[in-house]
Amino acid sequence: MGSGVARHAGKRAAGEIRILPVAVSGEIRAGESLCARLLAAARSLGLRFRDGDILVVKHKVVSKAEGALVALDEIRPSAASRAWARRYGLDARVCELALRESRRIVRRKRGVLITETKHGFVCANSGVDVSNVDGGRHAALLPVNPDRSASKLRRELKKQLGIEIAVIVSDSFGRPWREGLTEVAIGVAGMRPLLDYRGRRDPHGYSLHATVDAVADELACAAGLVCGKLAGTPACIIRGYSYYRETRIGSGGARELIRPARNDLFR
Amino acid sequence: MGSGVARHAGKRAAGEIRILPVAVSGEIRAGESLCARLLAAARSLGLRFRDGDILVVKHKVVSKAEGALVALDEIRPSAASRAWARRYGLDARVCELALRESRRIVRRKRGVLITETKHGFVCANSGVDVSNVDGGRHAALLPVNPDRSASKLRRELKKQLGIEIAVIVSDSFGRPWREGLTEVAIGVAGMRPLLDYRGRRDPHGYSLHATVDAVADELACAAGLVCGKLAGTPACIIRGYSYYRETRIGSGGARELIRPARNDLFR
Repeated sequence: MGSGVARHAGKRAAGEIRILPVAVSGEIRAGESLCARLLAAARSLGLRFRDGDILVVKHKVVSKAEGALVALDEIRPSAASRAWARRYGLDARVCELALRESRRIVRRKRGVLITETKHGFVCANSGVDVSNVDGGRHAALLPVNPDRSASKLRRELKKQLGIEIAVIVSDSFGRPWREGLTEVAIGVAGMRPLLDYRGRRDPHGYSLHATVDAVADELACAAGLVCGKLAGTPACIIRGYSYYRETRIGSGGARELIRPARNDLFR
Repeated sequence: MGSGVARHAGKRAAGEIRILPVAVSGEIRAGESLCARLLAAARSLGLRFRDGDILVVKHKVVSKAEGALVALDEIRPSAASRAWARRYGLDARVCELALRESRRIVRRKRGVLITETKHGFVCANSGVDVSNVDGGRHAALLPVNPDRSASKLRRELKKQLGIEIAVIVSDSFGRPWREGLTEVAIGVAGMRPLLDYRGRRDPHGYSLHATVDAVADELACAAGLVCGKLAGTPACIIRGYSYYRETRIGSGGARELIRPARNDLFR
């Protein structure tokens, strides 16, 4: 184990994977220790973390703990935001905030605003979201640096428990061509987010030349099955998935999941 | 339960979800019963299906069982396909097949061909794939009608076991803006693929107006964690996820996950 990258056992045919929901009662306030809250919640559920577990946390509780909330009353939308919002029955303050949090507009059409956020994520409304905050008074922004948020949580868990736990911070994004949202990893610590098969051979000896799996996104999706919009379950433990460990400071992270604009056929 | 739509219990805070890999030894041949092979494999692993389980199957074994394979030697690529393949170091026969399986080209740039398949899926090379087939002699196509493939498997499982099991047929697709492939549901039977929260309220009373989750895709991703490219595990059972049942003939299916081109901002 130790630091650096430890080889995992491949996608094993044997072991099962378990997704263990971590329900948290009560709100998480700015400045609170998310780590302490999650550990207390896990304890009260009789859940014990194990070395190699993956903790997936919905970004909203991270944003709340980090105080990444904006009072909508304090936003003065531009005339353009007001006109856009009026036309499509939206909240002009949220539209304004979404523009402020963006570094580029990817599409703006029929009331849908797809932006590239300051982090480089491409999503609706720059991830600005009013649901599951406080009933409409505040909007939650994405964490300023979700990889750093994930790293901090990983380090705190290691300090408290003495074991290595990978951490994924997730949000729900829409996609082109397909209906419905799925979870994606916007912050990753302690594991490699991509699993690269290139150069390896299938059981027939055929070389796999185009196969890189976004395992952190698949883990986020698996977590999305228990971390609901309505269930008060902002986190879960995924157990039994053998990942490549990555604990070097400044390596890996969810930014590896972001395709550079120059390689992207749809920007 | 019976037919029609039975309400599930929501995304429960309590129960855990388990992902149980179903390893299958040996190849699956055209005309073989996939159901019989999977049941035998599960039995040999000591796995017993339960009512409400979800069986996720990688599309390639479905294609093989249905004989959706093409001998590459019999493909005569056009001059355009040959030139394109030469330029980017690709197999011209695969490029030709990908075009034949498409109904529209979405992007063709830098050696990457993104098409809309005859089913309506938008993916690379119309889903034509040479890996995990027979070392390069044949290419696997997507099943002709993956919803029908899923339905057939569901009905056969019900006949053999007397219980309701939802079935998802999955493939790995790339996405714009993000690196790496993730699994998507290309065939669904026995469950609703989308979970619609619109009109429901979060714990703060805020009405969720934009929230539809692509749960079948999230289940496919969860399955992707155990159904590997290299592991000989073409299927798994997902247990503990409460879904909305959908057993009316002709309802639901993965086609609900396809965004109609007229609503799509990226076609």
